[in-house]
Amino acid sequence: MISCSSVSQGLPANPRIQVIAYGPDSIEESALAKPEELRHLLNECPVIWVNVDGVGYEELVSQIGDMFGMHHLAVEDVVNVVQRAKVEQYEENVFIVARMVVLKNKLETEQVSLFLGSNFVLTFQEEEHPGDCFDQVRERIRKHLGKIRSSASDYLAYALLDAIVDGYFPVLEGYGERLQALEDEILEQPTKDTVASVHEIKRNLLTLRRAIWPMRDALNTLYRDPIPIICHETRVYLRDCYDHSIRIIDLLETDRELCSDLMDVYLSSVSNRLNEVMKWLTMITAIFIPPTFIVGVYGMNFHTEKSPWNMPELDWHLGYPFAWLLIVLGALLMPVLMWCKGWLEHRRLRGDIK
Amino acid sequence: MISCSSVSQGLPANPRIQVIAYGPDSIEESALAKPEELRHLLNECPVIWVNVDGVGYEELVSQIGDMFGMHHLAVEDVVNVVQRAKVEQYEENVFIVARMVVLKNKLETEQVSLFLGSNFVLTFQEEEHPGDCFDQVRERIRKHLGKIRSSASDYLAYALLDAIVDGYFPVLEGYGERLQALEDEILEQPTKDTVASVHEIKRNLLTLRRAIWPMRDALNTLYRDPIPIICHETRVYLRDCYDHSIRIIDLLETDRELCSDLMDVYLSSVSNRLNEVMKWLTMITAIFIPPTFIVGVYGMNFHTEKSPWNMPELDWHLGYPFAWLLIVLGALLMPVLMWCKGWLEHRRLRGDIK
Amino acid sequence: MISCSSVSQGLPANPRIQVIAYGPDSIEESALAKPEELRHLLNECPVIWVNVDGVGYEELVSQIGDMFGMHHLAVEDVVNVVQRAKVEQYEENVFIVARMVVLKNKLETEQVSLFLGSNFVLTFQEEEHPGDCFDQVRERIRKHLGKIRSSASDYLAYALLDAIVDGYFPVLEGYGERLQALEDEILEQPTKDTVASVHEIKRNLLTLRRAIWPMRDALNTLYRDPIPIICHETRVYLRDCYDHSIRIIDLLETDRELCSDLMDVYLSSVSNRLNEVMKWLTMITAIFIPPTFIVGVYGMNFHTEKSPWNMPELDWHLGYPFAWLLIVLGALLMPVLMWCKGWLEHRRLRGDIK
Amino acid sequence: MISCSSVSQGLPANPRIQVIAYGPDSIEESALAKPEELRHLLNECPVIWVNVDGVGYEELVSQIGDMFGMHHLAVEDVVNVVQRAKVEQYEENVFIVARMVVLKNKLETEQVSLFLGSNFVLTFQEEEHPGDCFDQVRERIRKHLGKIRSSASDYLAYALLDAIVDGYFPVLEGYGERLQALEDEILEQPTKDTVASVHEIKRNLLTLRRAIWPMRDALNTLYRDPIPIICHETRVYLRDCYDHSIRIIDLLETDRELCSDLMDVYLSSVSNRLNEVMKWLTMITAIFIPPTFIVGVYGMNFHTEKSPWNMPELDWHLGYPFAWLLIVLGALLMPVLMWCKGWLEHRRLRGDIK
Amino acid sequence: MISCSSVSQGLPANPRIQVIAYGPDSIEESALAKPEELRHLLNECPVIWVNVDGVGYEELVSQIGDMFGMHHLAVEDVVNVVQRAKVEQYEENVFIVARMVVLKNKLETEQVSLFLGSNFVLTFQEEEHPGDCFDQVRERIRKHLGKIRSSASDYLAYALLDAIVDGYFPVLEGYGERLQALEDEILEQPTKDTVASVHEIKRNLLTLRRAIWPMRDALNTLYRDPIPIICHETRVYLRDCYDHSIRIIDLLETDRELCSDLMDVYLSSVSNRLNEVMKWLTMITAIFIPPTFIVGVYGMNFHTEKSPWNMPELDWHLGYPFAWLLIVLGALLMPVLMWCKGWLEHRRLRGDIK
Repeated sequence: MISCSSVSQGLPANPRIQVIAYGPDSIEESALAKPEELRHLLNECPVIWVNVDGVGYEELVSQIGDMFGMHHLAVEDVVNVVQRAKVEQYEENVFIVARMVVLKNKLETEQVSLFLGSNFVLTFQEEEHPGDCFDQVRERIRKHLGKIRSSASDYLAYALLDAIVDGYFPVLEGYGERLQALEDEILEQPTKDTVASVHEIKRNLLTLRRAIWPMRDALNTLYRDPIPIICHETRVYLRDCYDHSIRIIDLLETDRELCSDLMDVYLSSVSNRLNEVMKWLTMITAIFIPPTFIVGVYGMNFHTEKSPWNMPELDWHLGYPFAWLLIVLGALLMPVLMWCKGWLEHRRLRGDIK
Repeated sequence: MISCSSVSQGLPANPRIQVIAYGPDSIEESALAKPEELRHLLNECPVIWVNVDGVGYEELVSQIGDMFGMHHLAVEDVVNVVQRAKVEQYEENVFIVARMVVLKNKLETEQVSLFLGSNFVLTFQEEEHPGDCFDQVRERIRKHLGKIRSSASDYLAYALLDAIVDGYFPVLEGYGERLQALEDEILEQPTKDTVASVHEIKRNLLTLRRAIWPMRDALNTLYRDPIPIICHETRVYLRDCYDHSIRIIDLLETDRELCSDLMDVYLSSVSNRLNEVMKWLTMITAIFIPPTFIVGVYGMNFHTEKSPWNMPELDWHLGYPFAWLLIVLGALLMPVLMWCKGWLEHRRLRGDIK
Repeated sequence: MISCSSVSQGLPANPRIQVIAYGPDSIEESALAKPEELRHLLNECPVIWVNVDGVGYEELVSQIGDMFGMHHLAVEDVVNVVQRAKVEQYEENVFIVARMVVLKNKLETEQVSLFLGSNFVLTFQEEEHPGDCFDQVRERIRKHLGKIRSSASDYLAYALLDAIVDGYFPVLEGYGERLQALEDEILEQPTKDTVASVHEIKRNLLTLRRAIWPMRDALNTLYRDPIPIICHETRVYLRDCYDHSIRIIDLLETDRELCSDLMDVYLSSVSNRLNEVMKWLTMITAIFIPPTFIVGVYGMNFHTEKSPWNMPELDWHLGYPFAWLLIVLGALLMPVLMWCKGWLEHRRLRGDIK
Repeated sequence: MISCSSVSQGLPANPRIQVIAYGPDSIEESALAKPEELRHLLNECPVIWVNVDGVGYEELVSQIGDMFGMHHLAVEDVVNVVQRAKVEQYEENVFIVARMVVLKNKLETEQVSLFLGSNFVLTFQEEEHPGDCFDQVRERIRKHLGKIRSSASDYLAYALLDAIVDGYFPVLEGYGERLQALEDEILEQPTKDTVASVHEIKRNLLTLRRAIWPMRDALNTLYRDPIPIICHETRVYLRDCYDHSIRIIDLLETDRELCSDLMDVYLSSVSNRLNEVMKWLTMITAIFIPPTFIVGVYGMNFHTEKSPWNMPELDWHLGYPFAWLLIVLGALLMPVLMWCKGWLEHRRLRGDIK
Repeated sequence: MISCSSVSQGLPANPRIQVIAYGPDSIEESALAKPEELRHLLNECPVIWVNVDGVGYEELVSQIGDMFGMHHLAVEDVVNVVQRAKVEQYEENVFIVARMVVLKNKLETEQVSLFLGSNFVLTFQEEEHPGDCFDQVRERIRKHLGKIRSSASDYLAYALLDAIVDGYFPVLEGYGERLQALEDEILEQPTKDTVASVHEIKRNLLTLRRAIWPMRDALNTLYRDPIPIICHETRVYLRDCYDHSIRIIDLLETDRELCSDLMDVYLSSVSNRLNEVMKWLTMITAIFIPPTFIVGVYGMNFHTEKSPWNMPELDWHLGYPFAWLLIVLGALLMPVLMWCKGWLEHRRLRGDIK
C-alpha cells in the first residue's frame, strides 16, 4: 500500500503550522508548534485555513489529518510527494493535489495538497518557501480585499489553486523570451551551447507539462462534477482558473514546437557551415595542387646534357617565364572547369560562400 | 484572481467609443468621449453596437461593462488581452472572445471581446486600427445591405465574427504563395535564407494556429449549444462561419506539413551538394597526387655517377618522356580504379556530378 | 458574409446547362442555353437531373438555385469553389459538396456541388471537362442499366457521389506504382531528382487527403443521419461508398508513410555515399603523402661533400633502391596502421567500400 | 457501383468448391465442380460449410451468392479482392471480410470473405493455397475435436476467423527475430544492406497493419454488437479472438517503433564513422604536411656560393641532422597544438578514434 | 482456439504450490506437491490464497482451474504466458492478467494471472523467483499488519496487484538516473556507446510500456465497472493503485521523450565535432599549401646561366630571405582572406574552434 517510490527527503528543521481563522468580521492568525493546539481554534470562525510547511513529519500530518477526518490513503498521498495533480472526493470532503512551480537552482515542481471541508481548508507544502505564492492570498484575507472574507471555504480553495496556477505564467514567459533570444542567436551566430540551452528548456517544459496536464483535468473535474461542497458562484471562478490552465498548456505546446523547430534550424545551419568549410578546402586544393605539380616537374633532375629530350625547357631562354605561364594556367584549370560546370557560379549567386 | 501574466501596454492616446444604433428604418452614429453619454442612447433603437478601441483604460471598460451588466471576470478578460477565443454564457448574455489577425511589422493576433445582449453588442478591440475588418460591417449597416438592419443583435454578432474569421484567409493565401515560391527556390537554388524564411512562416502559422483552434471550438459552441439569445436562423449563418474556421485550419495544417517537407527537401539538397563538393575534392586529389609523387621521385638528388643503381633514368636518352609517361599513368591510376569499382560510372549515370 | 477568399476565375466561354429527366419508362435529354427553359421541364418526369458546368456565372447559379429553393448561403458555396466536402440539411433538401480529382497538368481537386430534392438533383461543376466522371452515370441512365432508372433521386445522388469517389482510385494506384519504382531507384541508384519526385508525390497526396477526409465525414453523415429524403435501401449503397472512401484514406496514409520512409532511406544512402567518398580520399592521402615526403627528403640540396653527416645516402651505392624501400614502407605505413586498428578490415567485411 | 479499382487477375485453372456438411453425429465432405450440385446438400445437416477457392469466376460467386441470399453489393465485395476487413449485417445474415497473411515470394494479405447464415458458412478465398490455415479447422471437424461439431454455424465462423488471426503470429515473430538480429548488426557492423532490410520490414509491417487494424474493429463489432445469429457462448470466444488481434497490433506497433529507432541508431553510427574517417584524414595531413614543406625548403636551388644569406644551412656540418630536427618538430607541431586545445585528448578518452 | 504463438518453455524443475489460508484469527500456510491436497483446505478459512510458480505444467494448471471453476479459455491464457494485462468477468468470478517486471540479465515482464472468487485468490506466476514481489504481502498476512487479515479476498487481490504495480517504480527510477547520467555525458563527452545505451533504455521503456498500458486499462475496469465481487471500500484502494499506474505511464512517457531529445542532442554534437575537425583540416591546408608551392618554385632546376630570365632570384644576394618572405606571405594569404570574408572571425567569436 505504501508506494516504494516514496522519495526520502531531509526533514526541514521545523515544520511550520500556520493557522488563519476568519469570517467577514474577524480574523485570527497564529503559528502553532503542536497540532494539539489546533483543537481550541476549530469551530470558532466560519473558515479556518491550516497551512503546514514540510510534510516530512509523517506523524504530524497524520495527526492533523485524523483531526479533520482525512482518509489514510489521502494522508499517504500528502506525505509521498510525487503525486500527480488530482481531485478525490471522500464523502463530504474533497482532497486536491496540485503541483506548484518552484525556481530554486533549477526548475522544479512541488506538491501542494489541499483538503477542503465545509468550514476548513488544510494545505500541505513540501517545504517552507519564504514568500510563497500563497502570500497574496494571505494579504487579501488580512486586508479584506475582494470577496474572500465574506465567502466560504470553497472560495478560499479556489483562491489558493488560482495562485498556484498563475505561478506558471511568469516562468513560461521567461522561457518564451529565452527562446526568442535563442532563435536570433541560431539564425545569426549559433554556438554549441545553444543546443544545450534549447535542450534544457525542452526538459523544463517537459517538467511543467507533466505538472500542468493533470492539473487541467483536476480543475475541469472541480468545476464540472457535482461536488456539493462547491457552490455555483465559485464554479464560475473555477472555470476561469481552468481557462488559465488551458492557456498555460497552449503556451507550453507552442514553446515545445518552437524548440523542435529551432533544433531543425540549428542542424541545417550546421550543415550549411560544413558545406562552406568544404568549399574553401576544395577551392584551395583546386588552385594550388596543379601548380605544385608543375613546379615539381621542373624540379626533376634529368640531365639536359645527356639528351635533347631531357627537359630542354630548362635551357630555354624563356624557360622560367614559360613555367610560370604553365603554373598560372594550372591554377586556373580547375576553377574554370568548375565554373563551366556551373558549380561555382551557382554558389555565388546563392550567396553560400559568403 | 488577477492573472499575473497581464501584459502591460502603453495606453493609446484616446480610447475611442463609437456607437451605432440602428433598426430597420433608422440609424444613428456617434463617437463618444465619455461612457456616460451612452446612457441616453440606450433603448432608443432595436440594436445598439458600442465599439471601444483601446482596452488599456481599465476604468472605462469597467464602467461600460457595469452599464450592460457584465460579470467582473468578463471585464478582467477584456482588459487582460491574452485570452484564447472562448464563449461564456452569463445568464441572459453571452461573452465571446475572438482573436483577429493583424499585420503590422510582423504577424500578430489581437483580442476582440464581444458582449452580446438581446438588444446590444459591445466590442472591445486592443487598439485602434484605421480601416479595421469591421468597416465592411459598418458599411452594410449604413447602406442597408443584406439583412443586417432588419435582424437582431445576434446577427450583428455573427457578422462581426464572420469578418474576423474571414480576415485569416488573405494572410493564409499569402503564406501559401510564399511557400510555393520557396519550394521552387529550394528545388533549384536553395540559400541559407530559405531556412530562415521557412522557419519564420512556420512560427507565424503556429501563431495563427493558437488563435484559430479555440475560435473553431467557440464557433461550434455558439451554433450548437442551446443559447437562447441566438435564434435558429442565425445558427445557419454561424454554421457557415464555423465551416470557414475549419477551412482555415485545413489550410494551416496543410501549410505546416508543407513547411516540414520543405525542410526535409532542403536538408537532402544540402547533403547532395556536400557530396558533390567532396567528389570534386577527391577527384582533384586522385588525379594530381600520384603525378606529384612521381615528379618528386625524379627531383631526388642521388648521384648517378656514384652508382649505376642511382637513378639511371636521369641519364637515359628518353628519361624525361619516360617520366611523363609515368606521370600520365599515375594521373589515370586512381580514376581508372574508381571507374572499375563502378564508383565514377554510377555517379555520372545518376547525374550527380552534374 | 461573402468570404473574401473567393478565388476569382476566368469565366468559361459558355456555361453549359444539361438536363436529363427520366423515369422507369421515359428519358428526355436536353442542353439549355438559359435557365428559364428549365421551367417547363420540371415535374414532367419522376427525376430531373440538372448539371451545370462552369459556376463562374454567379447570376445563373443564383437563378437556378432560386428555382429549386436553395438557401442563398448554399448558392454562395457553389460559386465560391474552395469549400471542403460537406453535407448540409435545409428543411426538405440536402446540399452536398464533394471534391473531384482532376488531372490536368498537375493534380487538382475541383468542387462539385449537389443539391438533392425529392424529385431533382442539381449538380454544379467548376468547369466543363469533356468526358468527366459523370459520363458512366449518364450511360447507365440512357441504357437503363442497373436500377438507376427505377429509383428515386437519392439513388442518382449516390451514383454521382460513387463516381466521384471511385475517381480517386486510379490516381492513387498511379502513385502507388510510381512509389514502387522510386523505391527501387533509391535502393539502387538514387539521384537528386528522386527527392523532388518523392516530394511532389507527397504534396499531391496532401492535396488528395485534404479532399477525401471531409468527404468521408460527409458520406458518413449521409448514410447514418436521419435524413428523410434518403431511403433505407440507398443507405446500404451509401455505406458501400463510405467504405470506398475509407479504403482511399487507407491507401493514402500508407503511401504517405512510404514517402517518409523513402526519404529516410534516401538520406541514409546519401550519407553512405559520402562516407564512401571520404574513405577514397583518406586512402589516397594515406598512401601517397608519406612517399611524397620521403622523395622530398632526397630532393634536398645539402652538400654531401661538406660533411659526412650531410645526406650520405645520396652517395651510397644502393642509395636509390634504399629510397624506394623507404617509399614503399611509407606507402604501406598508414594503411597497415589503419588495418591494425581494425578500421579497414571492418569496412571491407561490411561491404562499404564496394 | 462497380469500383474501377478492381484488380484484374489471372483466373485460377479450376475454381474449387469444397463442401463440408456436419452435425454432432454425421459429417459429409465433397468437392463440387458446379454450384448446382450444392442444392441437394442444403438442409441435410445442421451446419454446411462451403469453401470456394478462386473468386475470379464472378459468375460462379454470383450463383452461389444468390443461392444463399447474398446482397449483390456483398457479391461485388467478394469478387473485388481489395476490401478492408469489415462486418456487414444483412437482415438475418452477416457478411464478414477478413484478410489472411500469405507468405509467397513476399508478404501479402489475401481477402477471405465469410457469409454466415443460421445454418451455413460460405468462405471465399482469392486463390487456392494447398495447406491453407483452414486445414486445422477441417481436421477438428473431421476428428470431432473440441466442441466444433456440436456447435452451430457461428462457432464455425469464429473458428475460421481465429485461424486467420492466429496466422499473423508466426509472421510477426519472424520479424521480431530479424529485427533482433539487425539490431545486433547495426550496433556492431552496420552495412548498407541493413537499411534496405529495415525498410523492407517496415513496409511489410505497414502491410500487416493495414490488414489487422480493420480486423480488430470487425472482431469488436462481432463480439459487442447485438447480432442475433451469434449466441452468447460464442461471444466469449470472439472476445478471445479480439484479444489476439489486439496483441498482434501491440507487437506490430512495438516492431514499428523499433524499426524507427534502428534507423536513428544507424544514422548516428554512420555519422560516427564519418567523423572517424575525417579524423584520420586530418591527422595524416597534420603530421605530414609541415615536414613536406620543410624538405621542400631545402630542395630550393639558391646558390650558396653567391651570398652567405643563401641557404647557409646546406653547407653546415650538421645541416642534414638540423633539417631532420626541423622535420620532426614540424610533424609534432600540429598534433601537439591539437592536443593542447584538448581536441585529441578528448577523442581518445571518448574512445572515438578506436 | 489454441493460439499458435504459444511460446514453448523449459519446464521448471518443480512447480511449487503454496497455499495460505487465513482469517482475522487464524492463518495456515502449506506447500503442496499435488493439487489434490488442496481439497481438504478449501472452505476452512474465510480466504484462501493459492500461488502456483511455474505454469509450464499445463495439466496441473488445468486441474487447479477446474477445482475453482475457471473457464477453459482462462486456463489457456494462464498457460500461454504472452497475454496482455486484462480483466475478464466470468459469472461470479474475475480473471485478471497482469505483467510483473523482472530484472534478470535484462529487463523482462512476466505474466501473473489472478483468479479471484468470493473466498479465494489463485495466482499463477511464470517461474519461481525467490523473493518475488509478493513477499511483502505474505509478510503482512503473517504479521497481521494493516487490514489485510480482516478483509475479504478482493482486498488480497488488490494487495497483490498493488505489489506488482509498485514493482515498476524502482526500475523506472533506475532508468531516470541513467538518463540523467547519459545527458551529462552527451553534453560533455559523448561516445558511441552512449547511443547504444540510449537505444537500450528506449527498448526497455518500450517493453515496460507494452506491459503497463493495458494494466492501466485493467485497473480502471476493476475500479469502475460494476463487478459485484469487489466491494466499495476496496474500490477506493484500487483507485489509488490505478493512480500509481498512471504515474508510471507519466514517468515512462517523460523518459521516452528525454531519450528522443538526447538522440537529437547527440547528433547535433556529432555534427559539431565534424565541423570542428573539418576546420582544422582546412586551416592546415590553407596555411601550408601556398608555402609548399613557393618552395617548389625555387626547387626548379632552370639554368640561371642560360638566360637572365631563368630564375635570377637564385643568384640574388638576398634570394633566400626573399623566398622566406614569399613563404610567410603565402602562409598568411588564405587565413587573411578567410578572416576578411568574416569566416574565421565568426567562428572564434562563436567559440566553435574551441
